[in-house]
Amino acid sequence: MQFDILVKNALIVTIDASGKIIESGGLGIKNDKIAAIFDGDIPSNVDALKIIDGDQMLVMPGWVNTHTHAAMTIYRGLADDKPLMEWLQKHIWPAEASYGNEQNVRLGTQLAMHEMLQSGTTCFNDMYFFQDAVAMEANAIGMRVVIGEGILDFPTPSIKNPEDSFDFVESLIQKWQGDGLVNCAITPHAPYTVSKQRLKKAKTLADKYSLKLHTHLSETAFEVEQSRTLHGKSPVKYLSDIGVLDQNTVAAHCVHFDEEDTAIAFKTKMSVSHNPQSNMKLGSGIAPIQRYLDNGIRVGVGTDGVASNNNLNMFEELDMASKLAKVFSEDATHLDARTVVEMGTIRGAEILGLSDSIGSIEVGKQADIQIIDLNYSRLLPMYNPYSHIVSAMNGSEVKHVIVAGKILMEDRIVKGLDTFGLFEQIRALSQLICNK
Amino acid sequence: MQFDILVKNALIVTIDASGKIIESGGLGIKNDKIAAIFDGDIPSNVDALKIIDGDQMLVMPGWVNTHTHAAMTIYRGLADDKPLMEWLQKHIWPAEASYGNEQNVRLGTQLAMHEMLQSGTTCFNDMYFFQDAVAMEANAIGMRVVIGEGILDFPTPSIKNPEDSFDFVESLIQKWQGDGLVNCAITPHAPYTVSKQRLKKAKTLADKYSLKLHTHLSETAFEVEQSRTLHGKSPVKYLSDIGVLDQNTVAAHCVHFDEEDTAIAFKTKMSVSHNPQSNMKLGSGIAPIQRYLDNGIRVGVGTDGVASNNNLNMFEELDMASKLAKVFSEDATHLDARTVVEMGTIRGAEILGLSDSIGSIEVGKQADIQIIDLNYSRLLPMYNPYSHIVSAMNGSEVKHVIVAGKILMEDRIVKGLDTFGLFEQIRALSQLICNK
Repeated sequence: MQFDILVKNALIVTIDASGKIIESGGLGIKNDKIAAIFDGDIPSNVDALKIIDGDQMLVMPGWVNTHTHAAMTIYRGLADDKPLMEWLQKHIWPAEASYGNEQNVRLGTQLAMHEMLQSGTTCFNDMYFFQDAVAMEANAIGMRVVIGEGILDFPTPSIKNPEDSFDFVESLIQKWQGDGLVNCAITPHAPYTVSKQRLKKAKTLADKYSLKLHTHLSETAFEVEQSRTLHGKSPVKYLSDIGVLDQNTVAAHCVHFDEEDTAIAFKTKMSVSHNPQSNMKLGSGIAPIQRYLDNGIRVGVGTDGVASNNNLNMFEELDMASKLAKVFSEDATHLDARTVVEMGTIRGAEILGLSDSIGSIEVGKQADIQIIDLNYSRLLPMYNPYSHIVSAMNGSEVKHVIVAGKILMEDRIVKGLDTFGLFEQIRALSQLICNK
Repeated sequence: MQFDILVKNALIVTIDASGKIIESGGLGIKNDKIAAIFDGDIPSNVDALKIIDGDQMLVMPGWVNTHTHAAMTIYRGLADDKPLMEWLQKHIWPAEASYGNEQNVRLGTQLAMHEMLQSGTTCFNDMYFFQDAVAMEANAIGMRVVIGEGILDFPTPSIKNPEDSFDFVESLIQKWQGDGLVNCAITPHAPYTVSKQRLKKAKTLADKYSLKLHTHLSETAFEVEQSRTLHGKSPVKYLSDIGVLDQNTVAAHCVHFDEEDTAIAFKTKMSVSHNPQSNMKLGSGIAPIQRYLDNGIRVGVGTDGVASNNNLNMFEELDMASKLAKVFSEDATHLDARTVVEMGTIRGAEILGLSDSIGSIEVGKQADIQIIDLNYSRLLPMYNPYSHIVSAMNGSEVKHVIVAGKILMEDRIVKGLDTFGLFEQIRALSQLICNK
């Protein structure tokens, strides 16, 4: 057998349905796919163009970040310690009005992908502007992305007239949907920034192309209150009543669901992208994730944009998710390590409609994997790999990252990007932004 | 001027009383002390045996970890997703009964120090067994430590007969107190594991040598309930009434303080070591830190032992502290980045009684500093150094660490330890522990 890439002698955490862990084994990658998995030594007739010795390394699927605004890296730490509405209206929106152009979205997305690869993320569900540029940048570096052009009732940096939103988005879909690494979603920003008519139109468009509808939902108590005043019901009930919620909905945040909202979420089969760090940092509240899981609601994890996090590190996000759930309920058994690792991989892939091809290490799936160096004092000793992934690793242990069979990061060097040049451009841009 | 070490061209976050930040400057270190601070270019008549170019680097005081059980690294991830009492009684105490010998405490402490140095910690307030060995190991590697031999009503791995506790501790004090890097504290484990008589004796001993008394306090709701049943009052009121609490008390956790407890804490001038990750992981609860600060109570930060964290990374601990406070109160202005950085440095030093010599970068203080590489995608751009320290860094950016003028880590290599040999010994030990 001849593979393109062979990983041997590694600890493999497959995240397959049985939760199989291979103490020492290997992976054969051919073209873009996982072609073979070996438990134990590699047979002598196996060869490969590139062999990676996985001794003292852990191989697992790359992270699936189910909610982010990648290009917002350029606003990292621009305004901290502020509540959501003040943060948005006084800092982020004005900065975006001045600097949210296509060139800066390209730069910010490049920076985001560099950071994501360096912390093991192989796929991200984006919602932002200039998504044609985002798709191009992701393709150039080789990352998997779900693009979502932000639809709002007011002009955006990329869509000057909201009336043009759907033509704009439809042309994106026709250009990109299913093009290898790129998938598309329909992304109306939130029930409080998009009219009922436009939300329904977004859902019609999502259905026409069988795409996910990705939106913000019940992020703050204020949003829920406002919805009750305006529509006489919660945002969840409102979206459900106008026919937007179903198994193709990916709703980010979902912090303030009451019992009725939870029942609606279960009934409609909508899914949740949990963003604990952003919800904490903005003081938005604690999403009752264990309750959602107990009620059969599917949950993935996302970092949200950098400006409210302030990084794109899924290791941190999962650690936070697990610990926050435990302290919220004062029950240490909630969101155990294995559940959380699944939320960062296969469950995230599932809510994006990609679990047939990514999210676990199984023969025939896309080779989207991270190879993690275990040779650190902070990872010694190791009794349970899931525990280490969630609570001991900080993300910098990720040594190699492969997407669709292509090595995008090797020995922590991200390929396909002029890192030095990028950093210089980002520094120059930040001078403009902070001197404004 | 001739220094031993000169750092130049660096961003210096001094944590002095005025909060001075030097955009580009330098530090001169002579023997164990900071001998000069330069704002701007270094004068041409300055020279040093060792020059560190701090271009694109941030220099700040090393972290002061105000509550840990360093040697517990050997139980990292041994039992996760369990509540405190089950975790202690079914997993940790049995493991300690079998493996808590002096040799393993040495190994675990070495591993802990390796990890702490790699994440910028220069001083730790320890509470565990075989503290003579801990002091020797800290001295050997050059780290600053406050040792605290655990005092309990039952035999410990190092003190077979509880009656011998005070003689044992007094001989430790006579051997180590004020010996360069080592300070001593008196450490009765908790009000629920140490008798009233022994607690009072501990306080008398602390007063005799002017030492801090370091204990666990109000960690779980169960502990408070039990105290109310047993003593008719909260653990705080109980300790206060028997004369244990004063400005020399360092109380770890302090999760379940009611208004009366808060008033007692203020009145007695006791201080709090906040351990958010352990409290979250064990489902113990959320310490109302902003309330403590608003009431004039001094607060430092600690990681607690690795077995309930599962690492010793102060960057993560501070990030968690800040975010947890914001989401607890649903107020994003709480525990702002600068406050939290102070809690990890000067305020931590203060509650340990060491702020005259460590915790900030000021001329005449000990040269306990960390030098952080800013050249990472996850740290770009940078608008506010405090924000990056708390919310963007993961700890692996720490490049060099200096304690008392001695470089203990250079280019992430920890000196003074046979890292390879240590890792092998830890792996061998963990085989025994997990096969038990």
